[in-house]
Amino acid sequence: LLSSRITSKIAQLSDYVAVNTNCKLCSLVAGLSAAKLLKTSGLNPLVLEARDRVGGRTFTVRNKETKWVDLGGAYIGPTQNRILRLAKEYGVKTYKVNEEENLVHFTNGKSYPFKGSFPPMWNPFVIMDFNNLFRTLDEMGREIPREAPWRAPHAKEWDEMSMQMLFDKIIWTRYAVRIFAKLFVNVNVTSEPHEVSALWFLWYIKQCGGTMRIFSTTNGGQERKFAGGSSQISECMAKELDERVKLESPVCRIDQSGDMVVVDTVDKHTYMARYVIVATPPALNLKMHFTPELPPLRNQLISRVPMGSVIKCMVYYKENFWRKKGFCGTMVIEEEGAPIGLTLDDTKPDGSVPAIMGLRRICDIYSRVLGTEEALHPVHYEEKNWCEEEYSGGCYTAYFPPGILTQFGRVLREPVGRLYFAGTETATEWSGYMEGAVQAGERAAREVMSALGKIHPTQIWQTEPESQDVIALPFESSFWERNLPSVGGFLKFLSVSSVLSTAAAAGLLAYRKGLLPRS
Amino acid sequence: LLSSRITSKIAQLSDYVAVNTNCKLCSLVAGLSAAKLLKTSGLNPLVLEARDRVGGRTFTVRNKETKWVDLGGAYIGPTQNRILRLAKEYGVKTYKVNEEENLVHFTNGKSYPFKGSFPPMWNPFVIMDFNNLFRTLDEMGREIPREAPWRAPHAKEWDEMSMQMLFDKIIWTRYAVRIFAKLFVNVNVTSEPHEVSALWFLWYIKQCGGTMRIFSTTNGGQERKFAGGSSQISECMAKELDERVKLESPVCRIDQSGDMVVVDTVDKHTYMARYVIVATPPALNLKMHFTPELPPLRNQLISRVPMGSVIKCMVYYKENFWRKKGFCGTMVIEEEGAPIGLTLDDTKPDGSVPAIMGLRRICDIYSRVLGTEEALHPVHYEEKNWCEEEYSGGCYTAYFPPGILTQFGRVLREPVGRLYFAGTETATEWSGYMEGAVQAGERAAREVMSALGKIHPTQIWQTEPESQDVIALPFESSFWERNLPSVGGFLKFLSVSSVLSTAAAAGLLAYRKGLLPRS
Repeated sequence: LLSSRITSKIAQLSDYVAVNTNCKLCSLVAGLSAAKLLKTSGLNPLVLEARDRVGGRTFTVRNKETKWVDLGGAYIGPTQNRILRLAKEYGVKTYKVNEEENLVHFTNGKSYPFKGSFPPMWNPFVIMDFNNLFRTLDEMGREIPREAPWRAPHAKEWDEMSMQMLFDKIIWTRYAVRIFAKLFVNVNVTSEPHEVSALWFLWYIKQCGGTMRIFSTTNGGQERKFAGGSSQISECMAKELDERVKLESPVCRIDQSGDMVVVDTVDKHTYMARYVIVATPPALNLKMHFTPELPPLRNQLISRVPMGSVIKCMVYYKENFWRKKGFCGTMVIEEEGAPIGLTLDDTKPDGSVPAIMGLRRICDIYSRVLGTEEALHPVHYEEKNWCEEEYSGGCYTAYFPPGILTQFGRVLREPVGRLYFAGTETATEWSGYMEGAVQAGERAAREVMSALGKIHPTQIWQTEPESQDVIALPFESSFWERNLPSVGGFLKFLSVSSVLSTAAAAGLLAYRKGLLPRS
Repeated sequence: LLSSRITSKIAQLSDYVAVNTNCKLCSLVAGLSAAKLLKTSGLNPLVLEARDRVGGRTFTVRNKETKWVDLGGAYIGPTQNRILRLAKEYGVKTYKVNEEENLVHFTNGKSYPFKGSFPPMWNPFVIMDFNNLFRTLDEMGREIPREAPWRAPHAKEWDEMSMQMLFDKIIWTRYAVRIFAKLFVNVNVTSEPHEVSALWFLWYIKQCGGTMRIFSTTNGGQERKFAGGSSQISECMAKELDERVKLESPVCRIDQSGDMVVVDTVDKHTYMARYVIVATPPALNLKMHFTPELPPLRNQLISRVPMGSVIKCMVYYKENFWRKKGFCGTMVIEEEGAPIGLTLDDTKPDGSVPAIMGLRRICDIYSRVLGTEEALHPVHYEEKNWCEEEYSGGCYTAYFPPGILTQFGRVLREPVGRLYFAGTETATEWSGYMEGAVQAGERAAREVMSALGKIHPTQIWQTEPESQDVIALPFESSFWERNLPSVGGFLKFLSVSSVLSTAAAAGLLAYRKGLLPRS
């Protein structure tokens, strides 16, 4: 029965990688979330998946050396309530990423242990500069609407700047803060400060809850992992959907010219549907040939939002030597040209399978940072180069080069006839993460339900109640963090006060010399 | 006989548009050029074209109102010897774009007639600044190897900058030169200075022969058009190839895993070939699903090089009123937010069908620039929005955002197994133009011939003898153009000379006061 296939979800691809610090989402999570909600609502969805597995940019590998390992999106944290709700429904437990012992800050070729989200600084100019940078990023973020960054008061100005240009304007100290700022961009969006629009990056940080929330392990985006791996969520959804999920079915054509939408796959199967949700990263819309052609703005958008570049590497050791030395496994590595910026402990929650998550060529740098020969002798190694995946195009997520968000952003999730768009890139909270994928998938499902007259258009966007298990704590900023001047402000203050003191000194002199009337 | 189909050319798409000033190429020109050379060499090529017509980004429309009109790539000029060779072979004549009368420079809301390639300036600071800008662009270009811009001595530094950042460094005057610099980028590569890499743009200008060659009408890229339209060249090649050209055959899959390369089209035909030349813009490689997957660098390159954005518009009038007023039809329009930057006369060579080529919403601005009501009353209008074309993605050509050329550029035309890459984007002379398409297509054909052992690898790249009909004259720079200081240099000179004069004055004073010994 043709009309019984109400929605054909083109969950074509896609993949992700959690470099270092961020968990990211897979479009497939979006496609499956959409299908799950549609099925629950009594509709009849079908998921067409390009790969031979579900999970997209999440990818859990099981073997005897690692038990299981997430080579794609892995981390979840407080305020990611939708993915936590799904996990709870399927009985997938979370555990905290180890941050018991000291973190390590590696800078100028030396390792400094520390506690907290950001490494401490000693030079007072560096402290002011560092504090001012992150305070400014958050302040600018507050001006940017989550759901429409192109409507921010300074949207055009900020979009025409790269993050590099913004750093050049804000950062005063020559070295320390610049390296950390680059690392902050690299780690969060797997691209370079000169490649991304300042408006887009500021929006990205904002919609994750700010600089502290996105970058922190405890109370932040990297607080937890799923025991048993993140793909379990997709696997459970796929099991629930059963025969409605077709693997190895990359879509190559979508024809909306007739009564039903016709969808062809590369293996020459044809499917009919009343509505289609395209749940790929925007760039992978290009894998499909559309009849009629996509509207001009969307046609140009999809070739303007590349995916980030990352290789996720896991190194396994016989012993957890870093904890014995008092290190938790988190390393913030500041070194020009270093292949890794951030690592996290990836040991199993019961202490078995000691491992460190990071990037390529990591062994040498681990031993320099942790100061031990042991780091040069791993017992096992797993890696995933997400740049080579045709059905991801890269990881974690799409980035917007300068100028693109204000010109093309508004059509990111604008339906085209009977096509609706999901994928974490279309989310307004934790876009780029598994959480964003679930938000996007469920929103797209409700768009279809609204088009079918089953819900009111005002019901499409829904907020999510807070998880009872993973509680978000506010980040308290100190008086000094709020009020410490920037380096520029401090210097201005110095010069004003020196004018004042000069005036005062001159006044005193004049008084002493009897040039002022003594009353 | 399968093995008789030696090359299946995937001339999938594509299109072009000559906004304003530049003629550009179509990938299909590349595909057809490759096929033509292969056939002449005794091989057996097949061209798979996505559209229902050949010509790609060239697109000649014939109707009674216009006789014929090029809504895509149209202009050719000296040093474009390959496309001129093809035109001569097929008996397609060229004619000069009208530049008899005055050009118009519209700035600060007023029109100023002028002669030459660039509008004259009056303010001496503007003259110095303008002269220094274009001299610097050409000087920087001289450092950049045509065939490998990523090997330029300052490649990384220049690639991490946008053209906007470079302009901010070079340009001293606040207004006039900045607007013209933006127009220069808009017109040449249909994108914005903040969107494109400085390294890429400098390379682009250089490989067209420099700022004068690319921007000039007489003796430059816009000197001539083809009488009867530019698509004739593709049509003649297609006629010669006859049944070897399959229209409406968009390729959606290329499988190199077996003995022969298997190519599937959207209409579910399958072709076999020993080698495949992909002659689309890089981004449109994404329309195809590859087995095995493309290598990581190419996989990421193709989502990082978007096509420019342009709508080409032709307005037809009853009379050629501009020539009567002493204007040739070329307007250089400097106005913040103006929808058009540059126009050219598009009247037929015999003086019939008076028309002006430019961009959208042009009537109002034409009448303001030309100062006549007549410009508000066209008799006919033709336009082509290249942004909406699925099988072009935009026009004229792909641009490189900051950071991409040095990271991914080296795989632009690197073969992948039995796949070779053509398309004007892969050319090293007049890339972005019809000329570049022919260079690329013939080079890719010779790569296949070399792989088959029919020619030596050193024969793949060939230079082209100069056209006897369209002669390239050198651009002579004047003593002042070469030696005029930049504004900054001039001010430094002033301050040095004021130091000198102060010193001299002080010396004179000291002498007069008897403080210096009189010998």
